[in-house]
Amino acid sequence: MQPDLSTLDTFLDDHGADGYLVYADAEDSTQRYLSGFDAPDPFLTLYDGDVHLLVSSLEYGRAKKAERPATVARHADYDHMAKVEEHGFEEGTDRVFTDFLADHGVESVVTPEDFPLATADGLRDLGVSVEAEREGVVDDIRAVKTDEEVDHVKEAQKANERAMARAEELIGEATVETGTDAGSGVLVHEGEVLTSERVTREIEMELLRHGCALDETIVACGADAADPHDRGSGPLRADESIIVDIFPRDKETKYFADMTRTFVKGEPNDTVAEWYDLTQEAKEAAFDALEPGATGKDVHDAVCDVYEAAGWPTLRSDETTETGFIHSTGHGVGLDIHEGPSLSPRGDELKPGHVVTIEPGLYDPEFGGVRIEDIAVVTEDGYENFTDYPEELVVE
Amino acid sequence: MQPDLSTLDTFLDDHGADGYLVYADAEDSTQRYLSGFDAPDPFLTLYDGDVHLLVSSLEYGRAKKAERPATVARHADYDHMAKVEEHGFEEGTDRVFTDFLADHGVESVVTPEDFPLATADGLRDLGVSVEAEREGVVDDIRAVKTDEEVDHVKEAQKANERAMARAEELIGEATVETGTDAGSGVLVHEGEVLTSERVTREIEMELLRHGCALDETIVACGADAADPHDRGSGPLRADESIIVDIFPRDKETKYFADMTRTFVKGEPNDTVAEWYDLTQEAKEAAFDALEPGATGKDVHDAVCDVYEAAGWPTLRSDETTETGFIHSTGHGVGLDIHEGPSLSPRGDELKPGHVVTIEPGLYDPEFGGVRIEDIAVVTEDGYENFTDYPEELVVE
Repeated sequence: MQPDLSTLDTFLDDHGADGYLVYADAEDSTQRYLSGFDAPDPFLTLYDGDVHLLVSSLEYGRAKKAERPATVARHADYDHMAKVEEHGFEEGTDRVFTDFLADHGVESVVTPEDFPLATADGLRDLGVSVEAEREGVVDDIRAVKTDEEVDHVKEAQKANERAMARAEELIGEATVETGTDAGSGVLVHEGEVLTSERVTREIEMELLRHGCALDETIVACGADAADPHDRGSGPLRADESIIVDIFPRDKETKYFADMTRTFVKGEPNDTVAEWYDLTQEAKEAAFDALEPGATGKDVHDAVCDVYEAAGWPTLRSDETTETGFIHSTGHGVGLDIHEGPSLSPRGDELKPGHVVTIEPGLYDPEFGGVRIEDIAVVTEDGYENFTDYPEELVVE
Repeated sequence: MQPDLSTLDTFLDDHGADGYLVYADAEDSTQRYLSGFDAPDPFLTLYDGDVHLLVSSLEYGRAKKAERPATVARHADYDHMAKVEEHGFEEGTDRVFTDFLADHGVESVVTPEDFPLATADGLRDLGVSVEAEREGVVDDIRAVKTDEEVDHVKEAQKANERAMARAEELIGEATVETGTDAGSGVLVHEGEVLTSERVTREIEMELLRHGCALDETIVACGADAADPHDRGSGPLRADESIIVDIFPRDKETKYFADMTRTFVKGEPNDTVAEWYDLTQEAKEAAFDALEPGATGKDVHDAVCDVYEAAGWPTLRSDETTETGFIHSTGHGVGLDIHEGPSLSPRGDELKPGHVVTIEPGLYDPEFGGVRIEDIAVVTEDGYENFTDYPEELVVE
């Protein structure tokens, strides 16, 4: 894939900078996107209209075979060993970097905001102008997906749906252990207590079978489910809400997908039942607002409107609330599980090609949590929701 | 686990800095180690003798329950919304950070070298002194493991050995497809071609069963194996070297292990057979040099000596060689798969509690690659190699 980097050219012109510089390994998605090269150790990518890589000897052979870079150099080409001998490892390496930049006529660079401070200051000491940009120019480019990239996310989402089906199947097949505390009995599957950990493992196995790597997975029941970032642990219980949030990454393409469903085995309490209906309503309101030209804030506000009208707190109505709707409405999905655009109070204009989650939810340790999350792509005239999974709170 | 941070106290005193500041998510191991808190989004950790966290509202509840931090604050405690309203998101957030630092009487901070540049410059603009340290003070603390941490690595290594056994079993059970090109036939297992991808998946399944997450895994055959960072792809072939390098991470403790074996199904070529013996010899030489007081460079030199004496190039004898011994001898293993200490030309003094790999190898696209890697802990009087896996090149 050759990304369209014309806005980066314009950005560099506007800022009077000679190049855009990234120093990171390929786990950094800006690095992966810009360089088109996958390496486990940090390497330098300079964009000056073309892509130039500076890598270690170890990566040199593979880097030369990568399709994107116009040129590939290695540390040894700039006398790394001699420079380290004379100036120590850090300054010696900085000097290799500045010589590499000078080779391309580059005296001033703009970097991503998370460019490593020590390298930036080291280059500055050697006379290079280094400024971090906080507009997220490459993030904005990455946020708009090509058809090929959308297909990668859709592929991961298919695996996601298989894994969700496996989780729901386990909960459905489980029986409720009857005891003195019959109303909130523990779930049992094939003679063993059904725990968050066991469902998570089955989800992960299913994802592996479909070419996806697992990252973290959330299978959170009861009070765990009331904390949106709790991964969940221990036995699952009847009559309590179980949030299953799966975000697999395709091992080949490295693109993510993301989906959440909430289940109750047995009888949900009245609050959870009300929250579920309200969250479906909030999700619909969000999708109604989702179109090119609208902002991420518009979509987020649509969700807050629904929850607040029903009397539940949101971070918009109370910045310090720990219950109610306590996160943003959604985020972009691509090479990162969380990327632009943001569907939140600071959400900017939405564009065709943006791939986003819509994931309203309500939380309170007293009742549990409810979240429903779909994934969609903004199109020329609205959106395409490519989530293909039913919404049923109660699992029989 | 409460790490011993006394050398960090000394470091701050020596540098006349009020605190050590980290801004990262918990995937950053310095952040995880120092904060003792696991969160998927970036948060601020200030160490000034105690650990202080500044987190988003979303993380506040969980952060308060974490055992390490002395205090936990959230953005809202410093009027984040009002500041963002007045100054925009970036500067508004920087102002929250400086108010938080001021609250703790902190005007000057030292940071890890990869501290995000934009935040550093933002804090500097608001009058905070920010300097990145390149000595790796927290890395050095992390490199020396407590007994509990060593046990975590050993636990992951046990899973690793099960996964390696599964890989070797698949290669052992495979038959060689006889055809016109009988000398280098494709391996077939239960009627299907045995590919790198298939062996990798079986390794990953086995790791999941033993509580480990997969990261990347290397199953590289023939020319792929000649590139130490190639993950491998496509059919495995008889009579060619197959490098299997597995580095699982325990999902619970987050500690890694690391091991490599090289296999040939059938008849290795003479060069690979010679390399295997030589690499065993190099590994032994490295272990002979491994003890507290020796340096990582000593251990690395021991390996270079063996290879160079046998006439093979190393990066020590030729900085630009693309064949021979083209990587370092080993690295520390802990919360990161690659961490201190380094067993390389720039390897410093080794200390009891250092957990390191010893992984000599030889590579050439013409013959393939050979690498053997064990994992060990430096002890008071030498080392303990806790790798429990045989070394047999030829798999029957």
